Amino acid sequence: MVGSNGTVAAGTAMLAASMPMAADRARLQQAVGETNKLLLLEGTVDVDDVGAAAFAVEEPPVDEEAAAERQAEVARLLAGFRRHLQDRTDHHLGYPYNLDLDFSVLAQFQSFCINNLGDPFIESNYGVHSRPLEVAVLDWFARLWDLHKDNYWGYITNCGTEGNLHGLLVGRELFPDGIIYASTESHYSVFKAARMYRVKCVKVDALVSGEMNCADFKSKLLQNPGSPAIVNVNIG
Amino acid sequence: MVGSNGTVAAGTAMLAASMPMAADRARLQQAVGETNKLLLLEGTVDVDDVGAAAFAVEEPPVDEEAAAERQAEVARLLAGFRRHLQDRTDHHLGYPYNLDLDFSVLAQFQSFCINNLGDPFIESNYGVHSRPLEVAVLDWFARLWDLHKDNYWGYITNCGTEGNLHGLLVGRELFPDGIIYASTESHYSVFKAARMYRVKCVKVDALVSGEMNCADFKSKLLQNPGSPAIVNVNIG
Ligand SMILES: Cc1ncc(COP(=O)(O)O)c(C=O)c1O
Ligand SMILES: Cc1ncc(COP(=O)(O)O)c(C=O)c1O
Repeated sequence: MVGSNGTVAAGTAMLAASMPMAADRARLQQAVGETNKLLLLEGTVDVDDVGAAAFAVEEPPVDEEAAAERQAEVARLLAGFRRHLQDRTDHHLGYPYNLDLDFSVLAQFQSFCINNLGDPFIESNYGVHSRPLEVAVLDWFARLWDLHKDNYWGYITNCGTEGNLHGLLVGRELFPDGIIYASTESHYSVFKAARMYRVKCVKVDALVSGEMNCADFKSKLLQNPGSPAIVNVNIG
Repeated sequence: MVGSNGTVAAGTAMLAASMPMAADRARLQQAVGETNKLLLLEGTVDVDDVGAAAFAVEEPPVDEEAAAERQAEVARLLAGFRRHLQDRTDHHLGYPYNLDLDFSVLAQFQSFCINNLGDPFIESNYGVHSRPLEVAVLDWFARLWDLHKDNYWGYITNCGTEGNLHGLLVGRELFPDGIIYASTESHYSVFKAARMYRVKCVKVDALVSGEMNCADFKSKLLQNPGSPAIVNVNIG
């Protein structure tokens, strides 16, 4: 398996942090040359054998003028992309997203490598984190939902999918033989999670309103009297 | 299950996007009041029963002067947090991260709700995305690793953990009865993935160098001659 990050982690990676890209590449090629094989999901590629049919390699320019020109090019590209996004946003009819946002006050944090790895309520061994802010957001939702202080746990997920994945995993860990019940109107990540976690999943019919069909839910529950139910509830 | 995002998605959420927070809260309380129950992982909380022992609710000020004061407060808080992060970064001995980064040119995108949901090689039904840039990053790595054009697939993960999760999931889908082999030096997310995916995982000894102990690997493979091997490889 070649992970997004697992590939250049471990042993020599601490050195790599301060190396320029070209040196990184040379080091990588050397490392690859040593084994002469690059393991890939689709099989094994012989390193001597490729190159010709592969992408052309374009190294970043080394002289300052060319670097400045390249920077200007990137700026132009990003400005164009920004206009494109503005246009797409202006023509956006709607979705469960708030598009009227502006996090520009957070721009000053773009130069830090912030990582809130792990449980936000436990002290981290990695110093560059924003755990106090993460917990503050959790507190905000706890207030919103009238949850008792010290009577909840959570963390901020990268996305909605991860929230669903985590909730369903907690359900499965509590009920290892449980069955997931989710209405057909549920987000696709719920059914993906069931497959990932190897949990049987029963789809429950929905009414035209989008609501779960409780009669169908009851009859499907009664078909599995011996198995705990892990129920995915959509609110809103 | 209450997901981070699943809670206020679906039906009425398109309306919510343009509502101020206080109205959201009122609407939420009304919705909750209708069922009078809020499902939680730890059980069921009766809504009439809480409040007293819960957090005090602090609504944002409505008059402009107070709002400006609050904005200044947030700016002070963030400036302090920035100094803290700079200090933590300055005293950081190392990790497989490059801390010498500056993405400030991307600040202009902080006001967009960009979502590259799904496969970057397939056209999205959501317009505000950066798929061309995502694919460009993949191309960059394809060049770096001398991969043939049109002969690879991938996507940008949110983090290293997700990269490991995805790689191992592909392995399990290819070999449903496979066993994961990973050295004791592997990142903890690999063992977490094995548990999530309900796949048997065999830990292989590592040498003092961090390298996998191949003799131990061989003997452990020979103990499971009937099962395909899904091997986690650490490079670097
Ligand atoms: C090999 C490997 N996998 C996974 C991770 C976890 O990365 P993240 O915290 O971004 O999920 C790391 C972090 O350094 C890593 O080195
Ligand atoms: C209920 C629900 N779950 C999950 C998601 C997926 O969110 P993301 O694309 O951030 O993973 C959405 C997206 O709108 C959603 O509405």
